[in-house]
Amino acid sequence: MPQPKVTAAPKDPAYEARVRESFARQGHMATLGVSIAFIAPGEVHLALPFAAQFCQQNGLMHAGAIASVADSASGYAARTLAPPDTDVLAVEFKINLLAPARGEGFVACARVLRAGRTLTVCQADVFTTGAGERTLIATMLSTVIVRPIERRLGSWPARPW
Amino acid sequence: MPQPKVTAAPKDPAYEARVRESFARQGHMATLGVSIAFIAPGEVHLALPFAAQFCQQNGLMHAGAIASVADSASGYAARTLAPPDTDVLAVEFKINLLAPARGEGFVACARVLRAGRTLTVCQADVFTTGAGERTLIATMLSTVIVRPIERRLGSWPARPW
Amino acid sequence: MPQPKVTAAPKDPAYEARVRESFARQGHMATLGVSIAFIAPGEVHLALPFAAQFCQQNGLMHAGAIASVADSASGYAARTLAPPDTDVLAVEFKINLLAPARGEGFVACARVLRAGRTLTVCQADVFTTGAGERTLIATMLSTVIVRPIERRLGSWPARPW
Amino acid sequence: MPQPKVTAAPKDPAYEARVRESFARQGHMATLGVSIAFIAPGEVHLALPFAAQFCQQNGLMHAGAIASVADSASGYAARTLAPPDTDVLAVEFKINLLAPARGEGFVACARVLRAGRTLTVCQADVFTTGAGERTLIATMLSTVIVRPIERRLGSWPARPW
Repeated sequence: MPQPKVTAAPKDPAYEARVRESFARQGHMATLGVSIAFIAPGEVHLALPFAAQFCQQNGLMHAGAIASVADSASGYAARTLAPPDTDVLAVEFKINLLAPARGEGFVACARVLRAGRTLTVCQADVFTTGAGERTLIATMLSTVIVRPIERRLGSWPARPW
Repeated sequence: MPQPKVTAAPKDPAYEARVRESFARQGHMATLGVSIAFIAPGEVHLALPFAAQFCQQNGLMHAGAIASVADSASGYAARTLAPPDTDVLAVEFKINLLAPARGEGFVACARVLRAGRTLTVCQADVFTTGAGERTLIATMLSTVIVRPIERRLGSWPARPW
Repeated sequence: MPQPKVTAAPKDPAYEARVRESFARQGHMATLGVSIAFIAPGEVHLALPFAAQFCQQNGLMHAGAIASVADSASGYAARTLAPPDTDVLAVEFKINLLAPARGEGFVACARVLRAGRTLTVCQADVFTTGAGERTLIATMLSTVIVRPIERRLGSWPARPW
Repeated sequence: MPQPKVTAAPKDPAYEARVRESFARQGHMATLGVSIAFIAPGEVHLALPFAAQFCQQNGLMHAGAIASVADSASGYAARTLAPPDTDVLAVEFKINLLAPARGEGFVACARVLRAGRTLTVCQADVFTTGAGERTLIATMLSTVIVRPIERRLGSWPARPW
């Protein structure tokens, strides 16, 4: 099957520093214990350890925790190809849960399927990590909007996109 | 416009106790500070306070935190109409983020669109709460599978659905 | 449950004529035998007759035919609230099939959940029509981009959005 | 990035004949002029020629026509791995439109991401065909339910899944 192609030349030479700086400001990622595993133009991987405090009723990681890390990985994959002085926001995403989210940890591997002027579309696959075989536990398809940086929260319009 | 109709007669007379008991076992909901605001056949509302530790890089609540509460609300809405001795699992969901997730708090209002033998489809709208007008900040469409209860994690098959 | 609110003041006084003129150019809608059932600011209904040539292997209307009419209804609902001299394009959509698509015909009722500067989010419910009770057979959540009119196909850029 | 793995051993030795026989009964595929380009365990490609009667208002193929062929390709990819005497039905799908749907024709390449007892999850990429480079114009993520064969339409229950 032909593979999707993305022109992965970054428009922002400081894309990696920009992703790391933004990631460091995501309280939600710190709370979940997420770390950056890989950054390249058009691709970001984030690692999520298993933790009981983010589980659902059966001791599996909650789908929302899995979605959180897949969403951040997708947003930052989009950011690697965005122009300088821009920020990224999730417009929408859809996730399929494919296998029980149990194990030592997980890695969300996001890549850009399409980098547009306004909208970037990403896919993120989430795998188990640790001993044993990697299992694909979820896949996400998402739409990200690229916008000029907006640092002051108070200045956000009611409909920024 | 004609409104979706759901036959909302619960098959499990103990549906409310069952939802509350399961919710109490969701570590992720406790971590996020979520509480049950409303339970009725085919409908569950969950309240989520604003908290910096679940925000993204601009001080808005992370889309994954919003998705977490919408997903749990949807699963429990499905559970209110499920037979006794069953559990619910998210198969997939799709969320659109409609407005910046800022404010005092949020409520995710989930309702069943279709309760089937195997699959239940839900919609969850997420609104701001607190002073001022309620703003719709997100909407989720999800598919939930109803399964026999499976309490021992070790016994989960690799492909339970 | 609080209902989503949309500010439904049309920015284009000729919104209805514009929708009808664009709809008349959709060969796919003519092929499917679709007609406009209702137009109002933020809401468009399209009627689709049952026809064997658009069925799947069991004699139900193909999910793609149902999605086609829900998608067009959503795009035109978005167009009713868009500025003059703009066109609408589907960015993405997600549809849940809720019941077998059989009967005399169907109506796709689309409404705007959020009308933004760039992106409009719509929901479309598809019901059976004809004798008997209306059954909800599908629901779609979609993202539509509003763009300046682009009449000459040759002039479309490779990434228009 | 690790690639999703699917155990692709077909449970139905007659999977190819079964797919071809079912495809031949899809009036919608015949109407659209779709043909089978490739069948293998876990993967089906369908070819769709460009045709004005399935276009939207700007002369691009309608998103619903593109979705139709991606959906059928996904359903049949699921069917290649399903047991004998089963049929497949789309439960839900989500499609992102990535580039204008113009050109000589298109091919929808669907593969199984996860084949479960009840639910199969597929991804379909749609590319342009003909002279010049293949462009990825859309991608679909879908959930398919596998059910015992149900040939007589009248016998379908109101909620078959």
